[in-house]
Amino acid sequence: MTAIANDTLLRALRREPVPHVPVWLMRQAGRYLPEYNALRAKAGSFMALATNPSLATEVTLQPLERFPLDAAILFSDILTIPDAMGLGLSFAEGEGPRFARTVGDERAAASLAVPDMDTLRYVFDAVREIKRSLRGRVPLIGFAGSPFTLACYMIEGRGSSDFASVRRMAFARPDVLDRVVAVNAQAVAQYLGEQARAGADALMLFDTWGGLLAPAAYRRFSLAPIRTVLAALPAGVPTIVFTKGAHDALDELVASGASCIGLDWTADLARARERYGERVAFQGNLDPLSLLTDAVSVERAAREVLAAAGTAPGYVFNVGHGLVPATPPESVAALVAAVHAAAPSSAPRG
Amino acid sequence: MTAIANDTLLRALRREPVPHVPVWLMRQAGRYLPEYNALRAKAGSFMALATNPSLATEVTLQPLERFPLDAAILFSDILTIPDAMGLGLSFAEGEGPRFARTVGDERAAASLAVPDMDTLRYVFDAVREIKRSLRGRVPLIGFAGSPFTLACYMIEGRGSSDFASVRRMAFARPDVLDRVVAVNAQAVAQYLGEQARAGADALMLFDTWGGLLAPAAYRRFSLAPIRTVLAALPAGVPTIVFTKGAHDALDELVASGASCIGLDWTADLARARERYGERVAFQGNLDPLSLLTDAVSVERAAREVLAAAGTAPGYVFNVGHGLVPATPPESVAALVAAVHAAAPSSAPRG
Repeated sequence: MTAIANDTLLRALRREPVPHVPVWLMRQAGRYLPEYNALRAKAGSFMALATNPSLATEVTLQPLERFPLDAAILFSDILTIPDAMGLGLSFAEGEGPRFARTVGDERAAASLAVPDMDTLRYVFDAVREIKRSLRGRVPLIGFAGSPFTLACYMIEGRGSSDFASVRRMAFARPDVLDRVVAVNAQAVAQYLGEQARAGADALMLFDTWGGLLAPAAYRRFSLAPIRTVLAALPAGVPTIVFTKGAHDALDELVASGASCIGLDWTADLARARERYGERVAFQGNLDPLSLLTDAVSVERAAREVLAAAGTAPGYVFNVGHGLVPATPPESVAALVAAVHAAAPSSAPRG
Repeated sequence: MTAIANDTLLRALRREPVPHVPVWLMRQAGRYLPEYNALRAKAGSFMALATNPSLATEVTLQPLERFPLDAAILFSDILTIPDAMGLGLSFAEGEGPRFARTVGDERAAASLAVPDMDTLRYVFDAVREIKRSLRGRVPLIGFAGSPFTLACYMIEGRGSSDFASVRRMAFARPDVLDRVVAVNAQAVAQYLGEQARAGADALMLFDTWGGLLAPAAYRRFSLAPIRTVLAALPAGVPTIVFTKGAHDALDELVASGASCIGLDWTADLARARERYGERVAFQGNLDPLSLLTDAVSVERAAREVLAAAGTAPGYVFNVGHGLVPATPPESVAALVAAVHAAAPSSAPRG
């Protein structure tokens, strides 16, 4: 084990004082960086990058070479698990993910099984190689999709703005959806456990689509399996649950066992910190589209989020959704500088 | 003025006791009805139906011939106002609305003006004709898009899953967006006022996209102009504000001056009723995709929403978003029957 030189992220996740507000950004490695696009063009595809530990390492470190970010996050995709289950993942250029096979009925759900973690070894190898390359500079965050979010893609077969097949299944065949998220919960727990054993310093669950469900369905199909995953993870590794549009479930999310709740850009961060800041850390929640402007506007937007967060311990700056490809790298530089210039959460005052 | 035979909707909006829970459904007139599709095919286009008061009347009444719904809602589109502003609305088959001209910069925003209400006379004529045809059977709801929701389409030029241009403008040129929503607020207030004078018994604002904004931007660009509209409406006409994804703003929405808040299907109706039920009525919020099942599942889903609503006064059953074209009319029949069979909100007990 190498000691971590800049451990502000881990301290913030444990709600300890920090010398500056830690900042990292969802999709900080990706298409807004010319060096990423160059490497992806050379590799041929997104999956060629994600399945090659050396390339995944290079991509993971790219944003850290440009910006003084306080964490690295594994370069991978949430859909590696359903791919390992045999559903046949591909990424059509400019179209997002597609599965060759979907989980549309009882029979398909019954035949679903937790994949052999050995088929996902390329992910754990990438974690090990990134950790070596980081040499203790900042922590590495490992991640997975939430059991329900994975189910959305597995049942729909692709991305969607409303995931109609899944929402329909929640009413028509809740037993089938129960089965899918239960298998996913086991798979995600094993997968994140392996990432932690390979060296990931914190673990994040992306519940991108749980907020599409009605409250009772959300509790049953999204929140309950998240709790199952969190309960099964190795002790001592801080966890972050990112939630989009699940504002009404914050009470339950705070009680889920996560160290930190990641909020989307529409959530009221100030209210969340005020109500629950003594119980969990929060991460978020700048609108990533605020970066499609100029340095002055970026700084103003960042200051607004920092003001909402306040200076109590337990806060990690982030965007409220992933960076978009049109983001100018200069905006990211201005953002990171603005966050680091801000008053630290609960640092000793002079 | 004709007295209204079934005024359960209006009583519920005023939080008075009702003999049964009133129910109507967003997009209750539309593509899931074969008789609608037949009429639309004959008329040639959506706008040919919407701009012809007799056809708009026929379409408005179609669902009431099939189902014992407790309200009619004007058949029209929220984009009639920007069309009247000269932006050139069209509906490409299967693609949704498009504007020939967008409001993308300061110059376009500066030249925007409240349209002469005479150019929208076809809407007020439709309201009058529908009222005559209803002969006091149930109330008629008039409606408009919220100032911000209209701005979304005017700036983006079409529908979008994220309305990136608008969210970007909120950070880059908040002054330009202020101008657009201010003009829209005046236009919407005049438009709804004319609908009330033509006979609409209740008025509804659809704030479909306000929930895309960060909290401070939501208050400035969506909520503030909604308050402006509500304050300018004729006294005594009950108002409904439908909001999607703006859960964290419920405090402010309740204080906005609306008689009733319409909730989307992901909102926690039980909590909203418990916290705010003494101050405003609520409407909602069945997931419309629950109707893509069978009668037993529909009834179960309806009972769940009714249980969340409770029996205190001030509740209108509805879906939490518009009916989708694939909705089987049999599901709507089963739904309306299930709601009417339920214990009435605060009816005298035996």
